[in-house]
Amino acid sequence: MSQTNLGIIVVGAGNVGGYWLDNFAPELPVGAEIVAIVRSTRYLTNCQGNVSNWREDFSNTTQHSPADALAVILQQLEACSHPHKVVLDLTADERIRHHYTDWIAAGAHIISANKYAGASSNQDYQKLRAALQQHQRHWLANTTVGAGLPIQAAIQERLRGNDTIHKISGLCSGSLSWILRQFQASDKAFSYWVKQAAELGYTEPDPRQDLGGHDVARKLTILAREAGWTIDPNDVQLQSLVPPELRQVDLSQFWQQINKLDAYLQPWLETDSAKPMDYLGTVALTNGQLTANAELTSFAADSLFATVRTGDSAFQIYSDHYCEGPLTVQGPGVGAALTASGVHSDVLTLFSELNS
Amino acid sequence: MSQTNLGIIVVGAGNVGGYWLDNFAPELPVGAEIVAIVRSTRYLTNCQGNVSNWREDFSNTTQHSPADALAVILQQLEACSHPHKVVLDLTADERIRHHYTDWIAAGAHIISANKYAGASSNQDYQKLRAALQQHQRHWLANTTVGAGLPIQAAIQERLRGNDTIHKISGLCSGSLSWILRQFQASDKAFSYWVKQAAELGYTEPDPRQDLGGHDVARKLTILAREAGWTIDPNDVQLQSLVPPELRQVDLSQFWQQINKLDAYLQPWLETDSAKPMDYLGTVALTNGQLTANAELTSFAADSLFATVRTGDSAFQIYSDHYCEGPLTVQGPGVGAALTASGVHSDVLTLFSELNS
Repeated sequence: MSQTNLGIIVVGAGNVGGYWLDNFAPELPVGAEIVAIVRSTRYLTNCQGNVSNWREDFSNTTQHSPADALAVILQQLEACSHPHKVVLDLTADERIRHHYTDWIAAGAHIISANKYAGASSNQDYQKLRAALQQHQRHWLANTTVGAGLPIQAAIQERLRGNDTIHKISGLCSGSLSWILRQFQASDKAFSYWVKQAAELGYTEPDPRQDLGGHDVARKLTILAREAGWTIDPNDVQLQSLVPPELRQVDLSQFWQQINKLDAYLQPWLETDSAKPMDYLGTVALTNGQLTANAELTSFAADSLFATVRTGDSAFQIYSDHYCEGPLTVQGPGVGAALTASGVHSDVLTLFSELNS
Repeated sequence: MSQTNLGIIVVGAGNVGGYWLDNFAPELPVGAEIVAIVRSTRYLTNCQGNVSNWREDFSNTTQHSPADALAVILQQLEACSHPHKVVLDLTADERIRHHYTDWIAAGAHIISANKYAGASSNQDYQKLRAALQQHQRHWLANTTVGAGLPIQAAIQERLRGNDTIHKISGLCSGSLSWILRQFQASDKAFSYWVKQAAELGYTEPDPRQDLGGHDVARKLTILAREAGWTIDPNDVQLQSLVPPELRQVDLSQFWQQINKLDAYLQPWLETDSAKPMDYLGTVALTNGQLTANAELTSFAADSLFATVRTGDSAFQIYSDHYCEGPLTVQGPGVGAALTASGVHSDVLTLFSELNS
């Protein structure tokens, strides 16, 4: 059997990219090799699969990425003589998705750990899909929700079984879940736990990305699209946990006035205070009408969502066939190791599809 | 793109087979068609994809299956001129697995809802694998555990991500789960709930198949093999809920003496009686040593296994990457509709692989 010769361009070598390069790149099958690693400031080329010293090689390289580092990737793609090529977007950078269609036109498949392409506006998303269709390229992104928990695979499997999905719900923000659970188990203020979470690195550098629900909206958008639904991320109704007066101020002012969170959230957090509460995202198609929202929700103490471990993600699918009870997938849904493992699974899936 | 021309031979048209023929066969893609339906007593041939009146056609057919009805399938395979062919084993008949290798040698792929091939002795299982390898044929069986819950897919995904699985646990007997939960929520005897379950059709015709743990052992065997482990189903240590004196007697005597269950189980059922209890199967590989067992187990009230809905199946995977908390898949795991939907997913997966 002939071996697919797959050239891999890795974009981003931070938490996830670094973990993948250290732990999974050495396990690539024969016929797949890394040809370039691109970061925002510098890049490595002609790797010829040997990336065992990539950190040292980076510090020695003189190849500075130009102002538009992303143009480097296109150059690399055009120089790449492998029969197949793939760009791994392992960054969390919103700008990168704008270049996907150019890379696809240059012959690349795409694997994303980055959520922004899957959660872009409906118009941009349709353009991306059209480019993939036109150039017959694959796009895999199983780690964009739940860090590789097989929730997207579960949705695909339902569709393949001619099932009709009605609703997908999930606890999909590890940071909000951690903050809310710590808060409920203690007598400290909500704002105290936001500060703790930020110090532990559980939130985005600006925790308003988490507290505003934007991350949850992106994940709901990705899951809804996986279910075949047309959605614009702006359609997701979000309950922001950030008081209006803190939404536009700069980050240092936000931190100075962090206590304002407590008074703002008081009415919600006191409702059903005996019951476990979390930030639940839901997207549903009812009589052809799509609704999506995310908000503080309290659960019966013995419900599944109430018993999920702190920091775990959990998703439920309701469908024609899972109507009496939902299909549930849950488990740890964050972290570089899980995400890198899921990325590697995508790489091997692509490799096997190209080889079949 | 050329269309795979796939001839489908359906074996069994009872609960699952009947549901699939009624609801999913009409949805087969162009290029896939049913060429024969074989039951134990009669069979239909030359269906040419038109099975909309299969029940009526069966009552009109004069094609009686011979003493060995399974020989009919081999005849049908040899007569089938489609470039690809697949046998769907939708029965629950233990004898059928013995014919898989002949069908594979005759060019068939296999899709099983029937658990017996996946849970056969290690020797027979290796023979089947060797035949598949030799003839380059596919065998799909995603409905043999949890009726299509994506537990086998989750295990495959872990392996594809270079993860190492250490342990798989599950509530995998819907009937035992139902009986134990009804019992614990009531003041009626355990034997009363066994009778109720049998009347409702939740158990095998001989409920000792469920109460003895044999069904759980088969599912553990299938999951362990999916994880790449070598296991013989006899290696599974089972706690039988049937008193020794009732294990060999005939079925009517078992029913006459059913009350003996209660005294036999008393010591177990009284242990931790405040805690929810279920019949838990576990298979684990520790330092190269495989252990598998299934037994009555009590859970903390807020643990996931305790909060699973009655009749749901639930599985947990512990691995290098899911070590802090397990990856969990749960949901309704029994029933003809779910199983038929999962079978259809297997058919479409095979069709797509043949077409790629």
